[in-house]
Amino acid sequence: RCREQPLIPPAFPHFLRRRLLSPRLRRIRLVVCDVDGVLTDGGLSYDEDGTVVKRFDVRDGLAVRMLQQAGITVALLSGGRGGATEQRARHLDIHHCRVGVSNKRAGLEELRHELAMGREQTAFLGDDLNDLVVRPATGLLITPADAAPGLCRQADWVLRRRGGDGALREFSDALLASQGWMEGFEQSGVGTTN
Amino acid sequence: RCREQPLIPPAFPHFLRRRLLSPRLRRIRLVVCDVDGVLTDGGLSYDEDGTVVKRFDVRDGLAVRMLQQAGITVALLSGGRGGATEQRARHLDIHHCRVGVSNKRAGLEELRHELAMGREQTAFLGDDLNDLVVRPATGLLITPADAAPGLCRQADWVLRRRGGDGALREFSDALLASQGWMEGFEQSGVGTTN
Amino acid sequence: RCREQPLIPPAFPHFLRRRLLSPRLRRIRLVVCDVDGVLTDGGLSYDEDGTVVKRFDVRDGLAVRMLQQAGITVALLSGGRGGATEQRARHLDIHHCRVGVSNKRAGLEELRHELAMGREQTAFLGDDLNDLVVRPATGLLITPADAAPGLCRQADWVLRRRGGDGALREFSDALLASQGWMEGFEQSGVGTTN
Amino acid sequence: RCREQPLIPPAFPHFLRRRLLSPRLRRIRLVVCDVDGVLTDGGLSYDEDGTVVKRFDVRDGLAVRMLQQAGITVALLSGGRGGATEQRARHLDIHHCRVGVSNKRAGLEELRHELAMGREQTAFLGDDLNDLVVRPATGLLITPADAAPGLCRQADWVLRRRGGDGALREFSDALLASQGWMEGFEQSGVGTTN
Repeated sequence: RCREQPLIPPAFPHFLRRRLLSPRLRRIRLVVCDVDGVLTDGGLSYDEDGTVVKRFDVRDGLAVRMLQQAGITVALLSGGRGGATEQRARHLDIHHCRVGVSNKRAGLEELRHELAMGREQTAFLGDDLNDLVVRPATGLLITPADAAPGLCRQADWVLRRRGGDGALREFSDALLASQGWMEGFEQSGVGTTN
Repeated sequence: RCREQPLIPPAFPHFLRRRLLSPRLRRIRLVVCDVDGVLTDGGLSYDEDGTVVKRFDVRDGLAVRMLQQAGITVALLSGGRGGATEQRARHLDIHHCRVGVSNKRAGLEELRHELAMGREQTAFLGDDLNDLVVRPATGLLITPADAAPGLCRQADWVLRRRGGDGALREFSDALLASQGWMEGFEQSGVGTTN
Repeated sequence: RCREQPLIPPAFPHFLRRRLLSPRLRRIRLVVCDVDGVLTDGGLSYDEDGTVVKRFDVRDGLAVRMLQQAGITVALLSGGRGGATEQRARHLDIHHCRVGVSNKRAGLEELRHELAMGREQTAFLGDDLNDLVVRPATGLLITPADAAPGLCRQADWVLRRRGGDGALREFSDALLASQGWMEGFEQSGVGTTN
Repeated sequence: RCREQPLIPPAFPHFLRRRLLSPRLRRIRLVVCDVDGVLTDGGLSYDEDGTVVKRFDVRDGLAVRMLQQAGITVALLSGGRGGATEQRARHLDIHHCRVGVSNKRAGLEELRHELAMGREQTAFLGDDLNDLVVRPATGLLITPADAAPGLCRQADWVLRRRGGDGALREFSDALLASQGWMEGFEQSGVGTTN
């Protein structure tokens, strides 16, 4: 939906956009992700008992592993139900996972306080209007390609990839490149389960 | 499939179409949704015991929350099996959820009577030929982009988005904008779980 | 994959193709469908216990209902595992459902014999090389758009739609139109659960 | 993501590329597949208990059957969790299935040793940076169209098809054609369950 009213016109060269963001990327020590629509494509699969299944992406899993190896903390902050989200967090050793959060700004500030992270050290990935309130509490606001236009207009970077289809990975690749980690991963590989 | 025989030619400007519909959107107080193919992409995932899983969209969930905050009633009217549908309705506090309905016209009229809603106050979203019978009982008939051509030809608006991929949200954004709610949601955000 | 070596060049007008097939469509009384890759997109979702979930399409469900109302028999003939397939068949009142069939030609001939259907009264929808053997036993061989090239080359009609995304419906719409049923369904609607 | 930095420019004719690879394909006796992102689209569907469901493709299943009939061994080597992967392997009679492998190079060399296969007899299909370490241990390194750019740059062949959408099948069709098996399968069909 962002395609309708892009923050930065599509003609704006991608490598230039990254260069402009690069000094701000270098300061990031904490990446906070909304879940539904960011780590998933927004799908909520209900069975007949009300159990909800969510589909995560293995490439985002490797993104989390690489961020953790680079000493960057990854946290989840979701307005939706837990269950599947908490299980995914557990498998990826994400220790900060908050679900059912109705006020995301308060949630994010609490998290930053707990981890002693400044605003400029924090990046938030969100996809919809209930993420709008975090804008003053985060240094970078990043959205997948298919986020709500009202959020895209406030974002620092609208990614090329959609939620659940490598959006976090696209961001983490740029983040890790700006901090000098990517070359090592691309030469020696990443030795980890994901 | 609608693409083959569009009601309104694709060249017809989108903002103009919304302007033409706007006076009719302003009167809507009740939004009734078919489920399979509207709130889902039509997928019915069967396991080996016959349990059926349906995939809903988190963005449509936020649409329901915003409609409810604007005082608009949301109801579900499905010809298909219940189970997953009823669970989704329960999570979104949709109190009017009817499943296994073979005569949708009678179902819609009963619902309108119960809620004391006139024809012009009612919008129906459907996607296939078994929704055709509701045409005389609803002020607006709306279809996702991938609805059956035979229904699209009778529709007031063929949305740009497909079922289960934000079709309800596209409609509710236009509806809420016409009633003056959207600006608030886009400025202050939406504080809710979805 | 059919796109690489199409039976009929894409430039060949679609309405003409249907006209050429129309006399043969009018004779069809039995529609036999392969399941994986035809009624589904070929996905086999495994859980950790080995249970397999298959995703069917609600629009193909309405196709089956319309065919049955027109007095055309629908049958399933699958080389794959049962379970999900048999459950879907049960919900759609498909009484002839054979799974785990290794020789599809023998299976199809047995079915035709049981139902006393001639070769010219039978249409078979398949998508892969294990369906090739039915060629001599069916009047029409139909494939979804994404079938294996080796099967497409033998097919009478390569549909525009992919398996699990309305392929059966595209065929049944043409079949029912050729037999004079479609107009009624598009005017009065279809009163049925699916 | 490979599209950004392709190994071989897209203009390079596809039939020529196959011809160049053909002498190397003829020597292959062992096909080793990564699982997530190769045999699946990378989706990991979590339910609320942490059970993970993976979606395989029926066409890749037929690929495995055809390779086995041609006397080529198929093995799985995955860094991810087992469960679904092991169940899929069991259904396809894949006897060599290793999951949770953190060092894929050691895993691959062990497998080759056990099966007495030389480097030039081995093809490996992978999709992400944790597969990079196998490069010295395999004759051919193949990736789906949507693999990580860092892996694509080291690959012998970037397939046209994406993981979980027939990538293995595209490779096995070329492999079996180079070894003279494909004509038989396309004329007499494949008699097997998949």
